Amino acid sequence: MKKILILNGPNLNLQGRRNPQVYGTERFDALMERLRVLHPGTEFSYFQSNVEGELIDALQRAEESCDGVVLNAGGYTHTSVALRDAVEAVRLPVVEVHLSQIAAREEFRRVSLLAPVAAGSIAGFGMLSYELGVEALLRLGEEER
Amino acid sequence: MKKILILNGPNLNLQGRRNPQVYGTERFDALMERLRVLHPGTEFSYFQSNVEGELIDALQRAEESCDGVVLNAGGYTHTSVALRDAVEAVRLPVVEVHLSQIAAREEFRRVSLLAPVAAGSIAGFGMLSYELGVEALLRLGEEER
Amino acid sequence: MKKILILNGPNLNLQGRRNPQVYGTERFDALMERLRVLHPGTEFSYFQSNVEGELIDALQRAEESCDGVVLNAGGYTHTSVALRDAVEAVRLPVVEVHLSQIAAREEFRRVSLLAPVAAGSIAGFGMLSYELGVEALLRLGEEER
Amino acid sequence: MKKILILNGPNLNLQGRRNPQVYGTERFDALMERLRVLHPGTEFSYFQSNVEGELIDALQRAEESCDGVVLNAGGYTHTSVALRDAVEAVRLPVVEVHLSQIAAREEFRRVSLLAPVAAGSIAGFGMLSYELGVEALLRLGEEER
Amino acid sequence: MKKILILNGPNLNLQGRRNPQVYGTERFDALMERLRVLHPGTEFSYFQSNVEGELIDALQRAEESCDGVVLNAGGYTHTSVALRDAVEAVRLPVVEVHLSQIAAREEFRRVSLLAPVAAGSIAGFGMLSYELGVEALLRLGEEER
Amino acid sequence: MKKILILNGPNLNLQGRRNPQVYGTERFDALMERLRVLHPGTEFSYFQSNVEGELIDALQRAEESCDGVVLNAGGYTHTSVALRDAVEAVRLPVVEVHLSQIAAREEFRRVSLLAPVAAGSIAGFGMLSYELGVEALLRLGEEER
Amino acid sequence: MKKILILNGPNLNLQGRRNPQVYGTERFDALMERLRVLHPGTEFSYFQSNVEGELIDALQRAEESCDGVVLNAGGYTHTSVALRDAVEAVRLPVVEVHLSQIAAREEFRRVSLLAPVAAGSIAGFGMLSYELGVEALLRLGEEER
Amino acid sequence: MKKILILNGPNLNLQGRRNPQVYGTERFDALMERLRVLHPGTEFSYFQSNVEGELIDALQRAEESCDGVVLNAGGYTHTSVALRDAVEAVRLPVVEVHLSQIAAREEFRRVSLLAPVAAGSIAGFGMLSYELGVEALLRLGEEER
Amino acid sequence: MKKILILNGPNLNLQGRRNPQVYGTERFDALMERLRVLHPGTEFSYFQSNVEGELIDALQRAEESCDGVVLNAGGYTHTSVALRDAVEAVRLPVVEVHLSQIAAREEFRRVSLLAPVAAGSIAGFGMLSYELGVEALLRLGEEER
Amino acid sequence: MKKILILNGPNLNLQGRRNPQVYGTERFDALMERLRVLHPGTEFSYFQSNVEGELIDALQRAEESCDGVVLNAGGYTHTSVALRDAVEAVRLPVVEVHLSQIAAREEFRRVSLLAPVAAGSIAGFGMLSYELGVEALLRLGEEER
Amino acid sequence: MKKILILNGPNLNLQGRRNPQVYGTERFDALMERLRVLHPGTEFSYFQSNVEGELIDALQRAEESCDGVVLNAGGYTHTSVALRDAVEAVRLPVVEVHLSQIAAREEFRRVSLLAPVAAGSIAGFGMLSYELGVEALLRLGEEER
Amino acid sequence: MKKILILNGPNLNLQGRRNPQVYGTERFDALMERLRVLHPGTEFSYFQSNVEGELIDALQRAEESCDGVVLNAGGYTHTSVALRDAVEAVRLPVVEVHLSQIAAREEFRRVSLLAPVAAGSIAGFGMLSYELGVEALLRLGEEER
Repeated sequence: MKKILILNGPNLNLQGRRNPQVYGTERFDALMERLRVLHPGTEFSYFQSNVEGELIDALQRAEESCDGVVLNAGGYTHTSVALRDAVEAVRLPVVEVHLSQIAAREEFRRVSLLAPVAAGSIAGFGMLSYELGVEALLRLGEEER
Repeated sequence: MKKILILNGPNLNLQGRRNPQVYGTERFDALMERLRVLHPGTEFSYFQSNVEGELIDALQRAEESCDGVVLNAGGYTHTSVALRDAVEAVRLPVVEVHLSQIAAREEFRRVSLLAPVAAGSIAGFGMLSYELGVEALLRLGEEER
Repeated sequence: MKKILILNGPNLNLQGRRNPQVYGTERFDALMERLRVLHPGTEFSYFQSNVEGELIDALQRAEESCDGVVLNAGGYTHTSVALRDAVEAVRLPVVEVHLSQIAAREEFRRVSLLAPVAAGSIAGFGMLSYELGVEALLRLGEEER
Repeated sequence: MKKILILNGPNLNLQGRRNPQVYGTERFDALMERLRVLHPGTEFSYFQSNVEGELIDALQRAEESCDGVVLNAGGYTHTSVALRDAVEAVRLPVVEVHLSQIAAREEFRRVSLLAPVAAGSIAGFGMLSYELGVEALLRLGEEER
Repeated sequence: MKKILILNGPNLNLQGRRNPQVYGTERFDALMERLRVLHPGTEFSYFQSNVEGELIDALQRAEESCDGVVLNAGGYTHTSVALRDAVEAVRLPVVEVHLSQIAAREEFRRVSLLAPVAAGSIAGFGMLSYELGVEALLRLGEEER
Repeated sequence: MKKILILNGPNLNLQGRRNPQVYGTERFDALMERLRVLHPGTEFSYFQSNVEGELIDALQRAEESCDGVVLNAGGYTHTSVALRDAVEAVRLPVVEVHLSQIAAREEFRRVSLLAPVAAGSIAGFGMLSYELGVEALLRLGEEER
Repeated sequence: MKKILILNGPNLNLQGRRNPQVYGTERFDALMERLRVLHPGTEFSYFQSNVEGELIDALQRAEESCDGVVLNAGGYTHTSVALRDAVEAVRLPVVEVHLSQIAAREEFRRVSLLAPVAAGSIAGFGMLSYELGVEALLRLGEEER
Repeated sequence: MKKILILNGPNLNLQGRRNPQVYGTERFDALMERLRVLHPGTEFSYFQSNVEGELIDALQRAEESCDGVVLNAGGYTHTSVALRDAVEAVRLPVVEVHLSQIAAREEFRRVSLLAPVAAGSIAGFGMLSYELGVEALLRLGEEER
Repeated sequence: MKKILILNGPNLNLQGRRNPQVYGTERFDALMERLRVLHPGTEFSYFQSNVEGELIDALQRAEESCDGVVLNAGGYTHTSVALRDAVEAVRLPVVEVHLSQIAAREEFRRVSLLAPVAAGSIAGFGMLSYELGVEALLRLGEEER
Repeated sequence: MKKILILNGPNLNLQGRRNPQVYGTERFDALMERLRVLHPGTEFSYFQSNVEGELIDALQRAEESCDGVVLNAGGYTHTSVALRDAVEAVRLPVVEVHLSQIAAREEFRRVSLLAPVAAGSIAGFGMLSYELGVEALLRLGEEER
Repeated sequence: MKKILILNGPNLNLQGRRNPQVYGTERFDALMERLRVLHPGTEFSYFQSNVEGELIDALQRAEESCDGVVLNAGGYTHTSVALRDAVEAVRLPVVEVHLSQIAAREEFRRVSLLAPVAAGSIAGFGMLSYELGVEALLRLGEEER
Repeated sequence: MKKILILNGPNLNLQGRRNPQVYGTERFDALMERLRVLHPGTEFSYFQSNVEGELIDALQRAEESCDGVVLNAGGYTHTSVALRDAVEAVRLPVVEVHLSQIAAREEFRRVSLLAPVAAGSIAGFGMLSYELGVEALLRLGEEER
């Protein structure tokens, strides 16, 4: 597990600016830096898009350039059959993460279409969810899955 | 309230050409002109896209350049959690409009995911829905909300 | 469009006294005055009742004495098939209005039985909803519907 | 808590005559007498109507003349959003009572629209439900709520 | 079976004027006359109201003055638990009738809350539904139920 | 309207023998005789089958030999899309009848697939339901439908 | 309990030929033989049909010639209100059996319309289900139910 | 009615310590003392367990040692068919009580499995709910049920 | 793929006579002729029945005499678990066809119980659906499935 | 198959004392005796608990000491995912039995969570259900499953 | 019908590489070649995108440059109201195709939002589905629809 | 964060023995050892029970002796309102973990009643889920929540 893509979906480019009491004030560039410090032997890339299809494109490209993906699909988590198909199609471990406890929010956020095809899911720990997701990917890699 | 964005979703670029008995024959450039005549002190911009994520992008950009948005999200009204999150995230009054009475159409058009996070909703008056939406934004602005 | 009835359903006689932070402090007599000032060529009448059947009676009478109705049916919006039948039966444009964004409230307020038979619907703008409703009726009248 | 209104909904004027094995043979005038004997320092009034809107009227009037209401809304318990709005709007403790265990009856009687906005609910004890409701109001009053 | 009440619910006072292609052009006074001619030994009375509670009142009064009721509850058929309770409470055969085939209309008209407690149901024959309802009551009376 | 088919579905061949307190003791041959006495100018035929497809066959044959059908489809009422298609396909008035108030029985008997395509429906009057059904057909015929 | 009918529904004539790993390889003639050996004092008959109505016919005939029925209605178990009515109408103990654990299969096989009117139900034991069904009938007979 | 068991379910041993603004600060030993003062002629016992089966055990034992039970089953109210069966099986009046208005809380707390088999239900009055429950039991006892 | 059975369900014997604007005017004998011309090396047989069980019989017989089946089960498509079991049991490719776009019709026609066990499905092309079905069978045969 | 555990869930310790007309008067010690007489070569043990977790404990212990289990989980049948997991986890044939036809009782008793993981299910024969369950286990053992 | 667009949705660019046992190994360029050979008089174009809105754009452009579309919308089939609106808006026959039998897959793939507005649907034949779709378009064209 | 309780629900005592290909072969004592090695400054305790109420007891006790809990409630995750109430009541961070991706399993495992009240949720990583849960607790502690 040498290369990991952090893949973010819609509105996550606003992170750090909106609802700081809910999502915290840290932005993703700070997270990326920290990840690089914590895991010096691993190469991290970052991609964010509000467009569902571009997330699918990114997942497909990742199949060739990465060893694993930490995916926060935002609002597409609950509605995108196409994104689910992409997660299922790529031969890569994909870990689903969420900043908040989505199970504690509106009814339509209860079901994740991605969870059944993800390697695992982590929710509710804010930015820490991403770090745990990276750790999970690295550890899964060790056990050479 | 000086700058208002008229933001249109999928298939609304066909307006004036399809089903004229349902949607009327007026196109959006005619509407834009009329709006500028009716409200000479207000600046109007227009954006349409068939791509869900580009509508999210437009909403996020509007936060910096506009004072309010009149949004007709077309078919995404009923399916897009991501667009709803964007409406909720931007610090702008967004008024939801529809040409037709969506409540009188197919079952899957009954529920608007956007309505709960919009400042208000107007449906069923054809192009007039947009004019009422603009008026609502301007009036809400006066009461400096 | 010379004569317009403002028709209010249950509990709207309390307006201005309850939950002022939600519904504002303006009462309907102030609204009626403002409407008369704004539209001097139009005659406005007002009727409120807590009784479902009296609202039906009022709608039926309006067919003979009015050119359009702005209707806020309150709690009957979601439960009254009989009122819906009345809206459908009278040969008058009826615009449905609501003070609050009913889509953002309890589950049982999500569906309006009236919307599918109303000329159009406006919700979420407080007292301004009524003003927009009147304007919609007048503009629809101009296009001689 | 000096003045309490006993407010009865549809068909409760038949009490004592119909299904005596289910509802008992006591009429409401006997109950009222007993209440006055049991609580000599409290003033009781009684109102019954089959008309949903008149129950709303009565609740609104009670706000000015009473300190609490014991309400058995009969069949409107399960269908009236308007009555629920009235219970929520008046600034009075309203205790919901039922003669029978409505949870043990037909499916459509399982959900009470009033319970979520009532101060409390008592069901299944026949006429005793009203007495317990009065006692609850008086005790709540003592703790000066 | 000497006295029969024809009891009509909301909007049926418009019969003969609205949608003649659906409901026919005959008014209820013509029906009443024909019924009196067809059944000279029977006394017919007629009552219509748009108010749910007044229909309950009428049913309760009928218990003392009539031998049977032909009831078209209009829109209340599908929503009124209170009216159902009244039909169940009165010791009178009540025949449910409808002008149109309600099963062929909107989803919310599929279920009749009254049917399970009515002596029988007749729907879809226009004014003839009432005549069949009267005949059913008279024949049920013969078999001295 | 000269020729009428009485068409009975599954288990109705047991009529008069099972549950006499529910269905009465009269058999269908007695009914047929009475119908012939009551309507001497009309020709009646009778067919019963437990086989869904044979009822469809009978309906199709009736199109050529009859002027109307009184149909009690028994248990197929609630499950047979094929029988519904047949009722809709034949160019004959078909009146749906039931011995009991099916709306008062089990949940799965609440919805009739046939009602939306039948000329009208009559339920709950025992054998009298058939007589009313015949009368309805004859009267509809007079008005030359 | 002297005479028992083994009654099989649709596709069970294929038993022994299809999916032997699921249903085993034994055919019903082998079962019949074994039953006759195991219970020499009992007379067994066998009937299979793919036609729903013929199963109803068979059940009705059994009422006169048998003392009990072991019924595997196959796919009609889940859809046939008419067959259920027949089981309920005949005055015979009917034991419902299934080769497989239907509760572990597709969603639409979860509910048996027959179970609530059968004397008892046995599922999941392959051909042994029939033997247990016969034993249950004989034992129930002993306790002369 | 000489002996009454106060039976409390899961987490009620925390009463007085958690969420005092919701549940008050009084503990159950204070309640028990007050009950003994209020009803000197009655013997009260108290049992609490977090284990569903121990509540069933307690109910079964109470059948021999008590004359009535006031039961707050906490979270088991909504999920325990087994506890419901126990309430139904013991020959004792059981009154269901709740501290809060459960109808106003989460969706999964709306339905009580116990209510249909309890003698009556009281909810929403805090500790007073228990006192009303005791009074109900004593009064029901007087009328020697 | 030498022998193909065209198997038609209920009411399809009326094809060409009913609703010609929906279903066209061509009858099935014309289709059969055309098929024989188009595919001279293939033997076609035809069977239609209104009886569900006879369609199952036909499918089972086809297993021995045919190489594939084009099946239009009409109304049984949506209700017959037994027919589905038969399609699944026979070791033959079965192609499901429909004249109309069933997905665009009534709610109860949306789900096909047969589709999940059919080799493929074709709907909405009128008589052409059958021709495409035959072509699919022949092509699937070539790839020797 | 030498050792069989009869495992009973909540309230079954009351058997023989409650509702004798429904459940019979025989207690389980009588059943156990009869089983030992009927199957002298088999060793039977018995365990009952009202506690869900103790039933799980018992199932896990049985894995080591028994060859099969006859399980009546009472009210936990319909609610216990944990018990289902235990049945699935132990490597033992578990036969599900019920005294009554649970399919004929309340809605919430329709679905058994255990059935899909049990070897087979038997319901509705009273105490005989247990005897059939034992016989099934012994016969399954013979066929050395 | 001279020009046909083959329009593919999300993840179909992976065809031939993923799950070859399910989808086959043929890629779309091979299909396109074969189509050109089979139908030399027809011009074929191909477009694939993972972006929902780009598929809508493509459909709108096709209206001007093509005579028909064969559309496989992949995961958007089940979620995209916007794409459905586009299919409905363009004045072109659109044939819906799928590689697999979507009805046999997950629950959320059962309903196609596109089917009701497509000219017809073909599913389950792998790459052959496209060929049949082209043939359908050409044949529909001949009958000059 | 000095003391952490690993709390396991029903059937997790079988871990390492059942379905090793699904759950792995490692037992919890091995996990506990590894945790102690990885986090030498933290004190770990372990508790497992099959009894729902004992898990509630353990959570309540943990409030006094621990700084955080890693909870795998097994089958109770989906059914226990009482356990949820306990998680909500204790003033401790509780992290929910699962060995498998419960979202990919049976329908009744889709909803976790615990997730909305847990600090966060981690699922699908086998034993690694526990390690990530511990890490999350420790990190949350650092940020002194």
